[in-house]
Amino acid sequence: MTKKQKDPDIQAPNRRDFFKKTAFLSASLIASSSILAPIKITASSLDDPAIIDQASWGTKLGDLVDKNHYGLPSPYEHNNVRRVHDLLSSGDRYATVSMSPLHQQEGIITPNGLFFNRSHSGTTQVDPHKFRLMIHGLLDKPLVLTLEELKRYPSESRIHFIECPANGSTGWRGPQFDNLQFVKGMMSSAEWTGVPLKVVLKELGLHKNAKWMLAEGSDNSEMARSIPIEKVLDDAMLVWGQNGEPLRAEQGYPVRLLLPGWEGNLNVKWLKRLEFSSKPWHSKEETSKYTMLQKNGKAINYFWPMEVNSIITSPCPEVPWSSLKKGDIIEITGLAWSGRGTIKTVDISLDGGKNWIEASLKGLVLPKSWTRFSYIIKWDAKEKMLLSRAIDDSGHIQPSINKLIENVGVEGIYHRNPIVGWFVSNKGEVKNAHVRS
Amino acid sequence: MTKKQKDPDIQAPNRRDFFKKTAFLSASLIASSSILAPIKITASSLDDPAIIDQASWGTKLGDLVDKNHYGLPSPYEHNNVRRVHDLLSSGDRYATVSMSPLHQQEGIITPNGLFFNRSHSGTTQVDPHKFRLMIHGLLDKPLVLTLEELKRYPSESRIHFIECPANGSTGWRGPQFDNLQFVKGMMSSAEWTGVPLKVVLKELGLHKNAKWMLAEGSDNSEMARSIPIEKVLDDAMLVWGQNGEPLRAEQGYPVRLLLPGWEGNLNVKWLKRLEFSSKPWHSKEETSKYTMLQKNGKAINYFWPMEVNSIITSPCPEVPWSSLKKGDIIEITGLAWSGRGTIKTVDISLDGGKNWIEASLKGLVLPKSWTRFSYIIKWDAKEKMLLSRAIDDSGHIQPSINKLIENVGVEGIYHRNPIVGWFVSNKGEVKNAHVRS
Repeated sequence: MTKKQKDPDIQAPNRRDFFKKTAFLSASLIASSSILAPIKITASSLDDPAIIDQASWGTKLGDLVDKNHYGLPSPYEHNNVRRVHDLLSSGDRYATVSMSPLHQQEGIITPNGLFFNRSHSGTTQVDPHKFRLMIHGLLDKPLVLTLEELKRYPSESRIHFIECPANGSTGWRGPQFDNLQFVKGMMSSAEWTGVPLKVVLKELGLHKNAKWMLAEGSDNSEMARSIPIEKVLDDAMLVWGQNGEPLRAEQGYPVRLLLPGWEGNLNVKWLKRLEFSSKPWHSKEETSKYTMLQKNGKAINYFWPMEVNSIITSPCPEVPWSSLKKGDIIEITGLAWSGRGTIKTVDISLDGGKNWIEASLKGLVLPKSWTRFSYIIKWDAKEKMLLSRAIDDSGHIQPSINKLIENVGVEGIYHRNPIVGWFVSNKGEVKNAHVRS
Repeated sequence: MTKKQKDPDIQAPNRRDFFKKTAFLSASLIASSSILAPIKITASSLDDPAIIDQASWGTKLGDLVDKNHYGLPSPYEHNNVRRVHDLLSSGDRYATVSMSPLHQQEGIITPNGLFFNRSHSGTTQVDPHKFRLMIHGLLDKPLVLTLEELKRYPSESRIHFIECPANGSTGWRGPQFDNLQFVKGMMSSAEWTGVPLKVVLKELGLHKNAKWMLAEGSDNSEMARSIPIEKVLDDAMLVWGQNGEPLRAEQGYPVRLLLPGWEGNLNVKWLKRLEFSSKPWHSKEETSKYTMLQKNGKAINYFWPMEVNSIITSPCPEVPWSSLKKGDIIEITGLAWSGRGTIKTVDISLDGGKNWIEASLKGLVLPKSWTRFSYIIKWDAKEKMLLSRAIDDSGHIQPSINKLIENVGVEGIYHRNPIVGWFVSNKGEVKNAHVRS
């Protein structure tokens, strides 16, 4: 039953054959064309009520600079929030998921207030003064640490995404939600600060037969997962910082496990205990849940890395092209990520996968981290079927829906990373689509 | 009067002569020594009330996963806030500064709720639907843009600090505040998203005699600054995103100017107008304010880049070493930054500048961005005078207080980047210090 990760991805040994790329659109378009029809400043445009109104903004003082203040977003952004859907909560709001508004996500950092939240028994409020982390099992020197003691270790800060393995499952058997937030919002990204577990373990005398680590949370679900020792000694971290401040309660305050690139639920929150053993524990969350039934009737019980994946975030159903005029220049942008390494290439299709064009990667390109891609086109007011396809530096590539079904069947809802996209009408409206090829 | 930036820094043509480095402590200490005196798990430690209490955490459900929710920090972190000091507000809370809690800052991203806030007439609340940005002057095609039109440009996301040029001035004539927050809290860092100004200007036909750009805000102070065209065409951006969400109102929602590495006040908030001209405007904020009187009685009126600088953030008066026992291993860490480029080296002194040791740079090392440095020591329970000194890739180095006074006099409060640090008593208490050498 203890089966290692089956690999549902497709290897692409010969990328030259695989890619049917065309050069009919070029990323250098922006250098030669006009992005906007410029609005000249004339007497009449200066009479524009908006400009007259704007001139009045400076006539009164703004809000006071608050004392002892933790800031909040502009009141005009009250719709930029995480959202829960009843179809996902099964009527139980202790064990549901609050989806991140990816359609308004800029860059590769999620603000802490919009970080997606999946809980198995609600958000535990842990008193940091009463926090203890017990580290025991196959070790020479078992240890109980207070938070202050843990934070004395030299820290590292690294940007990584965390993704629920069920992300993307809402559209797996056909389009279920017509928006990006509920299609892919079970992931977010942050700069995490903490100590690599290998640094802590260095002085504790790990036994040679310690092949597994149990990470146990102090929440009501007693979330517990078995982690292979190779990952623990590679890049696992005990983290207390999230985007420059202490972890949010919903993210496991005061301390969570971080396993860069691996299934969200493995990154155990409200951590209270690490135990080392020669065998895994077969906990509830790795037997009755987070397993995947295959075509042959057997279940995979250990999935670990999140597969190479990508999604176009603009346009999307919430951010359509309806206001564009024919001939306008517009950017297609989105996020690509892989739990196996660094994003190497992202390809875009405008015609449902008949032709593929290489997009540009922009900004920071970091391992096990969201990576922004970009492709600029001239809007021709014709229907499009937009798809994106990511390749990582481990040689994995996103499969088509049919290929993924062929590999791992149709029953499981986890690790669904097929090529998906959006249908754009000739009026610029954007709809969820389901291209099976 | 239009005088270009005078350079108050010291060039270090021969670093080998300049540095008196010693090897009496090594960063590899951590590999060979024990960080903590391990607390063995015994029957009595399992009776520890904290561990018994912790075991009870899982006995009740946590808080519900909120619907339509923008998240907030753990209630246990209610003291981690920005703070205003009456000595700085001069009784006017419309025009003061709210300082970022740098003693609790992790990594190189400031969460938006803790981003420092300097306002000249309070926080303006701009309706994004009424926002217009006028771009005019020495251009073929002047333009008025709505927010939606502006956001159609292909965006870039970049991590940069913003610092008020008065940062560090509170301790300039001697220690004024005995904490890090009021000593250096007029700076923060974010991942900013927007469009480079050079991309917008490409199609507007900038005239050859356009040497300056006026950036004007829509706040009550009508904040306006003249920016040299070289900076505009180098890395200036119009930004609407801050750490993955729309700009905070206090940071200029919906659009501010970003001039990476340059004085905070030049990064004009609540932007409404950009004008191009052959001459600067001599606005209020570049004549009566943000100028610096020198020894010779003349004032420098254009400062631009923030100087190379650094500060130790742990330990600091708010994060002392009082709980350490002799022989414990502990990390000295802090932030280094330069508005002129990328941090190349940071040196640490434990003895007030007699000897210097090179620290490690850790995490991302990006241009015009906070950079974390680290040095690990064994606590010997003896008095220390901790200093840090940063060098950037433009060849600039932090001067001593005396050297800076020699160069630019004592009157001005801006661009004070001398080597500063903390006195640590033999009991591990940390005090603000003022080492003039």
